[in-house]
Amino acid sequence: MKFSNFFISTLKENPSDSRLVSHNLMIRSGMIKLETSGIYTWMPLGYRVLKKIIKIIEVEHEKKFINQILMPTIQSAEIWKTSKRYDSYGKEMLKIVDRYSKELLYGPTNEEMITVLGKQFIKSYKNLPRYFYHIQSKFRDEIRPRFGVMRAREFIMKDAYSFDINEKSGEETYVNFFKLYLKIFEKLGIPILPVRALSGEIGGHLSHEFHMVVDSGESEIFYNKSIEKNDFKNIELNKILKLESYTDDFYNKIPKKIEIPSFRSIELGHIFLFGSKYSDSFDFTINSESGKFKPYMGSYGIGISRIPAAIIELFHDKNGIIWPKEVSPFQIILINLLNDNETTKDFCEKLYDQLISSNFEVIYDDRNERSGTKFADADLIGIPLQVIVGKNLTDKRKVSIKYRNNHNEFEIDASDCPKSLMEIING
Amino acid sequence: MKFSNFFISTLKENPSDSRLVSHNLMIRSGMIKLETSGIYTWMPLGYRVLKKIIKIIEVEHEKKFINQILMPTIQSAEIWKTSKRYDSYGKEMLKIVDRYSKELLYGPTNEEMITVLGKQFIKSYKNLPRYFYHIQSKFRDEIRPRFGVMRAREFIMKDAYSFDINEKSGEETYVNFFKLYLKIFEKLGIPILPVRALSGEIGGHLSHEFHMVVDSGESEIFYNKSIEKNDFKNIELNKILKLESYTDDFYNKIPKKIEIPSFRSIELGHIFLFGSKYSDSFDFTINSESGKFKPYMGSYGIGISRIPAAIIELFHDKNGIIWPKEVSPFQIILINLLNDNETTKDFCEKLYDQLISSNFEVIYDDRNERSGTKFADADLIGIPLQVIVGKNLTDKRKVSIKYRNNHNEFEIDASDCPKSLMEIING
Repeated sequence: MKFSNFFISTLKENPSDSRLVSHNLMIRSGMIKLETSGIYTWMPLGYRVLKKIIKIIEVEHEKKFINQILMPTIQSAEIWKTSKRYDSYGKEMLKIVDRYSKELLYGPTNEEMITVLGKQFIKSYKNLPRYFYHIQSKFRDEIRPRFGVMRAREFIMKDAYSFDINEKSGEETYVNFFKLYLKIFEKLGIPILPVRALSGEIGGHLSHEFHMVVDSGESEIFYNKSIEKNDFKNIELNKILKLESYTDDFYNKIPKKIEIPSFRSIELGHIFLFGSKYSDSFDFTINSESGKFKPYMGSYGIGISRIPAAIIELFHDKNGIIWPKEVSPFQIILINLLNDNETTKDFCEKLYDQLISSNFEVIYDDRNERSGTKFADADLIGIPLQVIVGKNLTDKRKVSIKYRNNHNEFEIDASDCPKSLMEIING
Repeated sequence: MKFSNFFISTLKENPSDSRLVSHNLMIRSGMIKLETSGIYTWMPLGYRVLKKIIKIIEVEHEKKFINQILMPTIQSAEIWKTSKRYDSYGKEMLKIVDRYSKELLYGPTNEEMITVLGKQFIKSYKNLPRYFYHIQSKFRDEIRPRFGVMRAREFIMKDAYSFDINEKSGEETYVNFFKLYLKIFEKLGIPILPVRALSGEIGGHLSHEFHMVVDSGESEIFYNKSIEKNDFKNIELNKILKLESYTDDFYNKIPKKIEIPSFRSIELGHIFLFGSKYSDSFDFTINSESGKFKPYMGSYGIGISRIPAAIIELFHDKNGIIWPKEVSPFQIILINLLNDNETTKDFCEKLYDQLISSNFEVIYDDRNERSGTKFADADLIGIPLQVIVGKNLTDKRKVSIKYRNNHNEFEIDASDCPKSLMEIING
């Protein structure tokens, strides 16, 4: 993509009214635009990051035969009255009345809707276990929306739901989702720490949150050396609950070693095993050879639209964003420093075409701007590899390569492009 | 995908309360589930079709450098008051009040929001033309939601918006979107007829709808042999407006030749060139070398979530859906008729693995059901190519191939699978 065809609008200065680094950088790099309190538009650059994240999540869910569906954003109040959450959910629920005075709401989560869906379609124990997920906008009318997309009112969530035949099978499903979440965050390039959690509004007896440790996080998590004893029949589940067995592994992935018993973090995922809470409410009963039963259920969320912000909190410097390659909107930024020079222009156009036809994701800064602006914008939007074409090319047929993360810079022969570049990227 | 891993729930009989063929077939094949009046969940099979359609639309927009963004579903009432559409839009607008009594609404369309976006980001005439699109849920509180997803309240729309420097450039953009739409519907396997339209609520002087001609359609369009004279400076635009020049081409694509001057149809797309209507309302002014100007705008919609229903209206028979290959949820349905037979089972498993690893999209009916049910379900869900494995295989090492559209059936040697199959698909 060329700047002339891909709309990027950057700001030199930090916007004054925001505080969190990621919020400032997302606005400065033109990733998001505020519409009204806690409600944002994802601009072209931001939406590319979001799509990368969504793709990774979809692929990993697909591998585990979790079926993708799309539930609507608007729900009937009726099902929330059945589960007795309509009043208890409080003012965070955006309640709506339609033209016929029917009570609707903008879904903050989908346990009710999926239970009704399961009851309608799952008629036999032979259909179990079944897993569904969807990626959809949610709305929670936060009392104080802040930190940009980190705590927005309208946000994008991946929520999965499981139906199992009994507690034992439900616990196996829970363990599998736990492992799937570790895998997904690894694929996203995010160091993650699973944390025991309370089930809260959703209900149930078993719940974990998945946190990214970072000083600017709004959550506070505690590290308890003397883990409570658990006595689940599922051995893997006991292992998961005994976080010690994971500690070293996880801690090594956290940029700086945690020595204190409490630290700040950002919650990116939350899983719940709530059993028959909703199948009880909706009288969702299935016959089996050994009698009737209520399906054992769980739900598994990832806060997709806060992930870009969380990543930026962890990966940035004073000049801007430093995208991990897994979610970067482009792999390469190609910078032509001499707009009026036919040699650099021809070289860039040709290199761009070669890279694009080899399926590399390239953003090419073909703007008529001065070098300082181009360098500053390249650092700000954080593409991992900068390919700089200027006097080097005209004087000695060289091209400069610069890594965004460690600022390492070196030259390659122009005649070796794009082969050298492909080796750098693929290596 | 195997039936054991992919949830498909079919009904033998038509649901009683629906009328339109596509509505019945989408419910019977388990593509959609009604949540509440005019609000549907897309089940796994339906969502696959939707994703195919979305992918085709995205690829074609990408080619034309129309930048994908994601605007939120919830909008501030304020911007609609500025454009004076807040009251005039009527009861179809779902109005909402948040916890602080601020007036919000669920966006039925996005002209206001995109104009504010343009005003914030587009500062120079050098930034023009610019094109943005998003694929997002919309809500229109229809007085009488009906026909399933064909006239739903919550629905998915692709809406694009253009900003141009003046009328001449705006008309060129309009022509390009017109051609893009013809291309998209061709890629979707849908015969389409562009029709002159009134601009209605959106405003402007130039507008076309894109219709699929089918007897069950709820729209009525008229064919006027004596087309009005148009005098636009843009020659291509004049050609488009003189529909005669396209008539033969388009008519040949419509399954049965239209001889009457009026016929029924389903509207799938609508484009508008409304000029400075919204840039006037929002005082969106840009400086140029020849003075200040208000950007010239247009909007371009496709009703994504009604497309599967429209296709089914055109392509079905008494047994079920007949998907065009372009949007079919799978390319091949593999049917094992002898569930308890090790030979057919081994053969099917192996063939399935081979096809999957060659990147074919295969649904494999591995259920423990009788042949009649499997045949009926295969016809109902409408996958273009049926591969039937049963006594043919055990008796004479043959496999049956059956086309869903024309019922043609023939045998191939089992030993030639999957090579023959790949030739059939790729040919």
